Amino acid sequence: MFSSQEERILQRLAGLDPDLMAYIRDFAYDTVYERPGLDLKTKELIACALLASLGSPGELKTHLRGAMQAGATEQELRETLLFCVPYLGFPRVVAAFSQLADLQARQAAKQAQQPE
Amino acid sequence: MFSSQEERILQRLAGLDPDLMAYIRDFAYDTVYERPGLDLKTKELIACALLASLGSPGELKTHLRGAMQAGATEQELRETLLFCVPYLGFPRVVAAFSQLADLQARQAAKQAQQPE
Amino acid sequence: MFSSQEERILQRLAGLDPDLMAYIRDFAYDTVYERPGLDLKTKELIACALLASLGSPGELKTHLRGAMQAGATEQELRETLLFCVPYLGFPRVVAAFSQLADLQARQAAKQAQQPE
Amino acid sequence: MFSSQEERILQRLAGLDPDLMAYIRDFAYDTVYERPGLDLKTKELIACALLASLGSPGELKTHLRGAMQAGATEQELRETLLFCVPYLGFPRVVAAFSQLADLQARQAAKQAQQPE
Amino acid sequence: MFSSQEERILQRLAGLDPDLMAYIRDFAYDTVYERPGLDLKTKELIACALLASLGSPGELKTHLRGAMQAGATEQELRETLLFCVPYLGFPRVVAAFSQLADLQARQAAKQAQQPE
Amino acid sequence: MFSSQEERILQRLAGLDPDLMAYIRDFAYDTVYERPGLDLKTKELIACALLASLGSPGELKTHLRGAMQAGATEQELRETLLFCVPYLGFPRVVAAFSQLADLQARQAAKQAQQPE
Repeated sequence: MFSSQEERILQRLAGLDPDLMAYIRDFAYDTVYERPGLDLKTKELIACALLASLGSPGELKTHLRGAMQAGATEQELRETLLFCVPYLGFPRVVAAFSQLADLQARQAAKQAQQPE
Repeated sequence: MFSSQEERILQRLAGLDPDLMAYIRDFAYDTVYERPGLDLKTKELIACALLASLGSPGELKTHLRGAMQAGATEQELRETLLFCVPYLGFPRVVAAFSQLADLQARQAAKQAQQPE
Repeated sequence: MFSSQEERILQRLAGLDPDLMAYIRDFAYDTVYERPGLDLKTKELIACALLASLGSPGELKTHLRGAMQAGATEQELRETLLFCVPYLGFPRVVAAFSQLADLQARQAAKQAQQPE
Repeated sequence: MFSSQEERILQRLAGLDPDLMAYIRDFAYDTVYERPGLDLKTKELIACALLASLGSPGELKTHLRGAMQAGATEQELRETLLFCVPYLGFPRVVAAFSQLADLQARQAAKQAQQPE
Repeated sequence: MFSSQEERILQRLAGLDPDLMAYIRDFAYDTVYERPGLDLKTKELIACALLASLGSPGELKTHLRGAMQAGATEQELRETLLFCVPYLGFPRVVAAFSQLADLQARQAAKQAQQPE
Repeated sequence: MFSSQEERILQRLAGLDPDLMAYIRDFAYDTVYERPGLDLKTKELIACALLASLGSPGELKTHLRGAMQAGATEQELRETLLFCVPYLGFPRVVAAFSQLADLQARQAAKQAQQPE
């Protein structure tokens, strides 16, 4: 699902701890994430909201990207984060939008580097 | 949107503080909640995940009911809560499922009371 | 400072754990709380905001009462809790107002019992 | 490990959601909990500290009991909770000691009921 | 109220998301912040305590500066943060004092650059 | 106990605020930390779990180092962090392992610099 991104993530996690990586791969991804009943885009939007709540910048960026790959538009991402405001207050949501801005700046920089 | 439920909620909030009620009605419901871009069911599922994260039992029950009224099936509610496990750990999710069980017990009791 | 209330609180804490009580009395109350530089009412309002943030209902009620004893009006308590909304979101603040309602109901019941 | 207590816990969890129960049994208990490298008592004390931090009263009581069954003395439980004070502040720790008091009251009541 | 600082903050927020900026300006600042009943300095000190609790470094720095502009002395800021210790524990408060140190270092650097 | 590390930590804290330093030294270290009843290694492992829960990267690194100095093996540190997964979910634990990786990279760099 995460295609090349997933590969890179699991490699980075294995560098931190092989068992941690295995738990994330086997339990978080292959068991929980693969459950039917919610479409992938909805799952990724929920993940973004949860990570805004936890204040986990790295993982939030990963799932903002994951949500885009699952078909979420930029507007849907923004709506998801704005929807968090009444529940979480502004500071957590401002921090989440900073991650989105960061992600978009990186994506723009990457595209600018690529030859036509 | 929340129809009769909303009325009752706002009345209870007004009993706590009229300005708090007005902020929730005008900002949370009429401004943020009414935004287009995400369908109502997705919004309610995100709300349930956020409230599981915050550990707010009363509001969680309100939004589990709200999600059902927005068309979410029981399975979709369960999937949303199970999806929270890798992000929040088990204690928050067990507490959230207790709210769901409680809500379902109440709904069953209400139906049992009603004459056919 | 908390006069009769403090006595009762420390007794209840000693029932939980004598060392915990001693730490709260010696460090929290006699060392930190007694510092000059902020007036007592401001301290109690800050305590109420922090306890709304932590979601600690029992302690919040104690400090709502403490704030009143330190001279805070009901309006100042309400303003402090409403001020928390943009930082904490609505669920924590609704829970805090429930504690205030509870405290006021108890105080009213006590007054109703007293002979003129 | 939790012997009869575990059986009861898993049954209650299955009543909430069979898949949630299966994840807790297979991932939390059989995979993570069963890892070698830390003795059972140390694990249970860490669990108590984490649940004091999360503010999860039900699970905390379960693990206070679990720690006792793993050989922790009452003093070790109290030391673990007191040790949390500098990290978590007093409100979370007071709430945790309330759970311990509750557990001890129940255990005393049970013993008083049993014939000699 | 925040004068030139507010202008800069709102501009940065508009860069993140125009609607987020509008909500902060219209709801957080113009509606909640402008309420009478608490003086501005007290509000800013409460904001600092809440942001220490949330662990939001950027917003905390903004409101430490805002508190100074509202007339809070350095000592009052320090008292507010020290007062948080019994509620939040040391790690959150140490992080908050790091933001204060950072802010003061920047202000000193700015003053050193200015010609007499 | 923390030997040279403690000296450095207290100096850094005194630079933030002398009273904050004194509270940490007198209350956190000399009063709570020095209590008998739990061995030092267990205390440090509990501290690491609590700091993973709080998401306090700087303090976590300090206590990962402190746990090693108290005799914890690298495996015991890893087990402690993995044990947190069912309670806290993955994002907090991934962040904690990043601190461990960072600490180990620094320690390796230091050793590489030292002449034989």
